[in-house]
Amino acid sequence: MRGAFITLEGTEGVGKTTCLDFVRESLSAADIPTVVTREPGGTELGEKIRNWILEGNHGELSAETETLLMFAARAFHLDEVIRPALAAGRWVICDRFSDATVAYQGGGRRADKGWIKSLRAAVHAGLEPDLTLLLDAPVEVGLHRIRARAPDHFERENRDFFARVRAAYLELARDEPHRIKVIDAAPSLTEVNSRVSAHVTAFLGRFCP
Amino acid sequence: MRGAFITLEGTEGVGKTTCLDFVRESLSAADIPTVVTREPGGTELGEKIRNWILEGNHGELSAETETLLMFAARAFHLDEVIRPALAAGRWVICDRFSDATVAYQGGGRRADKGWIKSLRAAVHAGLEPDLTLLLDAPVEVGLHRIRARAPDHFERENRDFFARVRAAYLELARDEPHRIKVIDAAPSLTEVNSRVSAHVTAFLGRFCP
Repeated sequence: MRGAFITLEGTEGVGKTTCLDFVRESLSAADIPTVVTREPGGTELGEKIRNWILEGNHGELSAETETLLMFAARAFHLDEVIRPALAAGRWVICDRFSDATVAYQGGGRRADKGWIKSLRAAVHAGLEPDLTLLLDAPVEVGLHRIRARAPDHFERENRDFFARVRAAYLELARDEPHRIKVIDAAPSLTEVNSRVSAHVTAFLGRFCP
Repeated sequence: MRGAFITLEGTEGVGKTTCLDFVRESLSAADIPTVVTREPGGTELGEKIRNWILEGNHGELSAETETLLMFAARAFHLDEVIRPALAAGRWVICDRFSDATVAYQGGGRRADKGWIKSLRAAVHAGLEPDLTLLLDAPVEVGLHRIRARAPDHFERENRDFFARVRAAYLELARDEPHRIKVIDAAPSLTEVNSRVSAHVTAFLGRFCP
């Protein structure tokens, strides 16, 4: 039986990394073998592309160029890491996936979302995450939390940009409520983990009946 | 008035580099300012992607991943080099362009050509080469000529692969006879240059009446 594919999504400062650790530990406690990976990244090619995009030390990449780079890295990531792990029965927890391209390059940078979704369909070739945890908080909450960290390319973008990213994420969640679970990330860590735990437990019940 | 966009296409060993030099010299003799570039490549990002694909020292890239990388590099190349040069009135001579992706990744590696053409339409956004010189020769002729050179990733592919690439190029030329001029590259260099010259002269008459 193939493993489950779980993705974590959300804007900056919503606590994605903490949530990822919590999900991994929850699955390990249930004796489920996991592979943790991330996008952009996850392979040597993916990490190179991640650096090209996030460093921003070249001419300005258009939203369309970024989108194509993201999907090139994703196609390789699927071939090299995600599909083999799932086929071997391992569960894959991925820090951001295609929803992030719709939200950031589509919502944030205004590339055509219909075009992004057609690329997504071609590259996924039928494989979709089984569960997506979307950590959601008002833009001000996330920005306040990341203020202490060094800003990268995306974090230098302005407040309106993050508002568009958040709106695009929430639109995706409205379109696919069965897959995408929105978790209010504004409360305390204990409270957020409790909500994440409820979703993971419910998913385990559905996926491993 | 914007410059003209000329692309050179063909399989390995057909004399593309010599032809490119000849076209550039012909245009310079007519006092036309030129920019010579190539794909994959033409920008720092494009050269990184070129090296990544051609070296082949990594996990096998699928034809779809290669296609996405090619179009990501192309989108950046169009933004950074090709469109600005054309807008400034310079003529751009590009060693391979999107036809090569249809021929190599589509014909050679069997990625879906309809999908490649939809990516081409999205990335080109209306800009097509004004003239494409397709140097064509039987596969054996090209392979014989390159035998002395170090083979790269594509040149290591087999004879059938190049036969598919050639067939895909000729199909493109049948679909767009006004843009794509097929030049028999099997005869002597003098004879090939004479044919190239005739096409360039005819094009100059059309483009600069």
